[in-house]
Amino acid sequence: MYDRLKGFRDFYPGEMSARREVTDAVEEQLRRYGFREVGTPAMERTEMYVDKSGEEIVEELYTFEDKGGRNVALTPELTPTVARMVVAKQQALQKPIKWFSTRPFWRYEQVQQGRFREFYQTNVDIFGVSDPEADAEILAAAADVLTELGLTAEDFEFRVSHRDILGGLLESLDSDVDIADAIRAVDKSQKIDDAEYHELLVEAGLTREEAESFDAVLATDDLDDLVEFAGTDRVASAVENLRAVLDAADDFGADEFCTVSLETARGLDYYTGVVFECFDTAGEVSRSVFGGGRYDDLIEGFGGQPTPAVGVGIGHATLSLLCQRAGVWPEEELTTDYYVLTVGDTRDVAADIARQLRASGNVVESNLTGRGFGDQLGYADGINAETVVVVGEQDLADDAVTLKDMASGDQKQVPLEAFPGEYDRPTYDDY
Amino acid sequence: MYDRLKGFRDFYPGEMSARREVTDAVEEQLRRYGFREVGTPAMERTEMYVDKSGEEIVEELYTFEDKGGRNVALTPELTPTVARMVVAKQQALQKPIKWFSTRPFWRYEQVQQGRFREFYQTNVDIFGVSDPEADAEILAAAADVLTELGLTAEDFEFRVSHRDILGGLLESLDSDVDIADAIRAVDKSQKIDDAEYHELLVEAGLTREEAESFDAVLATDDLDDLVEFAGTDRVASAVENLRAVLDAADDFGADEFCTVSLETARGLDYYTGVVFECFDTAGEVSRSVFGGGRYDDLIEGFGGQPTPAVGVGIGHATLSLLCQRAGVWPEEELTTDYYVLTVGDTRDVAADIARQLRASGNVVESNLTGRGFGDQLGYADGINAETVVVVGEQDLADDAVTLKDMASGDQKQVPLEAFPGEYDRPTYDDY
Repeated sequence: MYDRLKGFRDFYPGEMSARREVTDAVEEQLRRYGFREVGTPAMERTEMYVDKSGEEIVEELYTFEDKGGRNVALTPELTPTVARMVVAKQQALQKPIKWFSTRPFWRYEQVQQGRFREFYQTNVDIFGVSDPEADAEILAAAADVLTELGLTAEDFEFRVSHRDILGGLLESLDSDVDIADAIRAVDKSQKIDDAEYHELLVEAGLTREEAESFDAVLATDDLDDLVEFAGTDRVASAVENLRAVLDAADDFGADEFCTVSLETARGLDYYTGVVFECFDTAGEVSRSVFGGGRYDDLIEGFGGQPTPAVGVGIGHATLSLLCQRAGVWPEEELTTDYYVLTVGDTRDVAADIARQLRASGNVVESNLTGRGFGDQLGYADGINAETVVVVGEQDLADDAVTLKDMASGDQKQVPLEAFPGEYDRPTYDDY
Repeated sequence: MYDRLKGFRDFYPGEMSARREVTDAVEEQLRRYGFREVGTPAMERTEMYVDKSGEEIVEELYTFEDKGGRNVALTPELTPTVARMVVAKQQALQKPIKWFSTRPFWRYEQVQQGRFREFYQTNVDIFGVSDPEADAEILAAAADVLTELGLTAEDFEFRVSHRDILGGLLESLDSDVDIADAIRAVDKSQKIDDAEYHELLVEAGLTREEAESFDAVLATDDLDDLVEFAGTDRVASAVENLRAVLDAADDFGADEFCTVSLETARGLDYYTGVVFECFDTAGEVSRSVFGGGRYDDLIEGFGGQPTPAVGVGIGHATLSLLCQRAGVWPEEELTTDYYVLTVGDTRDVAADIARQLRASGNVVESNLTGRGFGDQLGYADGINAETVVVVGEQDLADDAVTLKDMASGDQKQVPLEAFPGEYDRPTYDDY
């Protein structure tokens, strides 16, 4: 007997059916926005991740040398891959480029609630549009995905921030600040206490006084306070951009889900504009459910023409926790329209009935074994068959089949020629 | 600029949309048979493949040591994984266990037509049924998958054989034959000339005379010749089993696609009963499109209770070649129901219209940029929009929008209150 690897999961049919239902709903909503599915490889050259995120990324990658001597890595995220794809066909691709895909990724991380070494994400990106409408469409599409799953503004919120506000505020200080380090401190601020947070800011180059005033101004309700604090064009235009995105999100129907929260920084260095994270309003899913933002420099950094970009990666592990907490996760069970039960030598007639029922789109299992009536009925019950069609030798002698409604247990004989007859989905009640 | 790895593929939206359409059709057909989707990891312990297939399998695996010191491999096929899953829950799982999944696999192989290092398969298996009806259901479901895609008996055939007939015939010879080697020779027989084939049989232990008579009897049209040649119970019962499977396949509607072909051996050693391969009848897809068969010993070999099993793995690369050859591969292009075009400051009304159209299931893109009428119309054409809804300031001054039918170029103004109005999918012709 072999073990599954730690952090990897098997999904048996009941759980998988709920996951499939959710993935289908997510993707259907994205298709309606005109996002187009792309298919991407599970493996890339390791250097792509090192160049983008630094040598330390290797620690959490599944990397190895392949039999051709290439340093390769299992993809830990989608963004570098789609950036590579945009660069490869940048002349041929019409803008905006609107892509999505759902697939697994891999990171060698500590396994915990909602975090696995193999994890599934639906990634959604718009390339080639710098206008605030693109940021707002990402927010609106993500919100529609969640409401389509049955979630409401009671269940989730998008905390929206802007990298250039954070960067601009830090830049405006008198001290020489390591801005990336300081933004990483902000990103951690909600998970640590104030003293520890301020200490990290001091380590990033702020004086203790600056750390306190920076922390205080981030908590403001009035975006004008930020402009005043910094007194720079950079912060003024970042605030203007954030307002424009929120304004477009209002037109696009996503405003009720958006809250400005400048402590939201997103861990990754490559964001350049609006960033946001989805949180469980009940706070039971302790970390961010998912997040995204604008990353205008990545494509150029990958050797392409300057190409603005904005996107979101919806993690299915945390999404399922949110859905479960909110009571909208689908039932994890099988559904079956018909079980065609045989008694005696009736396989040909039973097969014919099964084929007709399948042809009109029904889920139909039929007997594959030599087992008897009771065992077959038990199996039909186990697969949650709605109707059992008994094709017995006695029934056929009467030119009939017996329909059994599994919910009530009621059964009646129906003439063979009337079943399925004119019906696409005949049930006990039709006769 | 980064390169994609050799043997790995990027699928851009046009090609992906055709692939998605085919995968959806394949899976829909399997669901109707009551096959249930499972989700499986991309990585397993390497020993699982070595134990099943021998040390030489490592040559074609992507294997490495993970950061926890485990010898792991990217999954080269699904069967060992689902066998592991059956063993892990064998008490809880009702029989028959009917599973399917579509996902990528990885092998470090020479790249050629229809063969990649990352390749997609839909795997379909039935566990727990030794009766011939299970083999026949796999054949019938595979045939229905192909006919659902628009393929006919003119396009493909299933060449059906039986491992125990081959094994039993070889065992009945006077010489001491290495049966696995001899079956591998049979598996190659259609790709090499007779002299080379006979040489391989001789290397496996047959005399030259035996090789010739064995080759001759395999070509027979009459299964009774095989029983007579061997004169053993083993071959007699294998022939009986093959006939029973074909008989059930007849009841299940798959007989027109099945041809007995004893030269079909399937390369893998773990098959134990009926085996089959799907071939392109036009012969343009040079190798087998896909194949499957019965493997009754694997679950027990994996430490489980003895559990019969039969399955098929449908490779999407060769399947797409077959569909393309037969002219039934879907168009590789985008489809879009509406493009909502804005002129001037009409974003709020345009967004409202887009949301209404999406709510009834349409694919709708709306303007995200500051660009003008002509550029937007060019984009709408590029995404194959069927209808463009022009929301211009002038239109709105008339309390109207302008509908443009992109096929004809015709356009007309429609009152704003009438669009979309009562229609789920309003087009130019509705007004």
